[in-house]
Amino acid sequence: MKKNIITVSREFGSGGRTIGKTVAQRLGIPYYDKELVKQVALESGFDPKYIEEQGEFAPGKTHFAFSFLGRGVPGVMGGMTAADFLWTIQHNVILDLAEKGPCVIVGRCADYILRDRTDCLHTFIHASMDFRAHRIVRLYGESEVAPEKRLQDKDARRRINYKHYTDREWGMSQNYHVCLDSSVLGIDKCVDIILDLAENCPDPTE
Amino acid sequence: MKKNIITVSREFGSGGRTIGKTVAQRLGIPYYDKELVKQVALESGFDPKYIEEQGEFAPGKTHFAFSFLGRGVPGVMGGMTAADFLWTIQHNVILDLAEKGPCVIVGRCADYILRDRTDCLHTFIHASMDFRAHRIVRLYGESEVAPEKRLQDKDARRRINYKHYTDREWGMSQNYHVCLDSSVLGIDKCVDIILDLAENCPDPTE
Repeated sequence: MKKNIITVSREFGSGGRTIGKTVAQRLGIPYYDKELVKQVALESGFDPKYIEEQGEFAPGKTHFAFSFLGRGVPGVMGGMTAADFLWTIQHNVILDLAEKGPCVIVGRCADYILRDRTDCLHTFIHASMDFRAHRIVRLYGESEVAPEKRLQDKDARRRINYKHYTDREWGMSQNYHVCLDSSVLGIDKCVDIILDLAENCPDPTE
Repeated sequence: MKKNIITVSREFGSGGRTIGKTVAQRLGIPYYDKELVKQVALESGFDPKYIEEQGEFAPGKTHFAFSFLGRGVPGVMGGMTAADFLWTIQHNVILDLAEKGPCVIVGRCADYILRDRTDCLHTFIHASMDFRAHRIVRLYGESEVAPEKRLQDKDARRRINYKHYTDREWGMSQNYHVCLDSSVLGIDKCVDIILDLAENCPDPTE
């Protein structure tokens, strides 16, 4: 069975975004990450910068720091927090994107949102702390915070966000069809494996 | 970097054992599972049947139901439970086997025990409940206990054993270099991926 939609979940600094982008380029299909964010923003009236910053992180932190349909509103709308509202919008956008056709979607709990579709390949990319620390310093430069601390903080926020909205453990292998350690296998090998699976995944029920 | 030693951890009924055995055959290297058990037994004086039954399960259940060096002994030896003693023996046997040369080792926390070797490929095989339930009935026949219950019990025992001895979560992707869902990818594709990685795994540090 061909896997039309590839979701890529990833640890910060593991190269998961690069892998997702390369897979999309090689397959000639759309890649959604910041693009997805823009689309969510257009649909919701949220400030794109707010969505980009908060879309994958722990809920309940900055409910008041956004504009909704151009108006300042408090953090709760009809019993729904701003984070919950954002989740609902992102959820629907991801379902719509999957309906439109083949694509790669990075992050945003897409593996969970699309769990019932049989034409998806759900992937998770992780890497050793050392590999990721070197990578983020090389890509994003030094900062006052040690790279290991930056990684731990970002991972923790993704883990809490994922748990909150999916009730599943972020990075637990059973949530994904394939999990790869990019620090051992290499970025290129991860791309090759995902490409092969996307195009030649057998249907064990056949 | 060539990966000489392949560890296969797996959910019961996922086909992990079959995958490990096939990989070993195709690479022409030893496969350790029941063979490993025998070796442990020879070294420890434990009854092979006891080790086979308890070697991967939760500690502390049947401390009194074994013979040690041919004598009946109580469950605690010098502050060490029988299960802990068995763990120590298995630990050393696995280190020895890895020293001897290329091989495939299924189960027994080998991923953890060999975590510091750079020539290992650590894999985890999982599958949907439905796939596994059908598989164990086909392979092992019906029993009075529903297959789903048999799977849950066996998984729980492996999870507790792994947590107890490694302080890690069984099935958490970060413990392994590659995790594969055999119910989606198929047994043959899992074999192919592991064979490819064993022979052509790049060294990202090169």
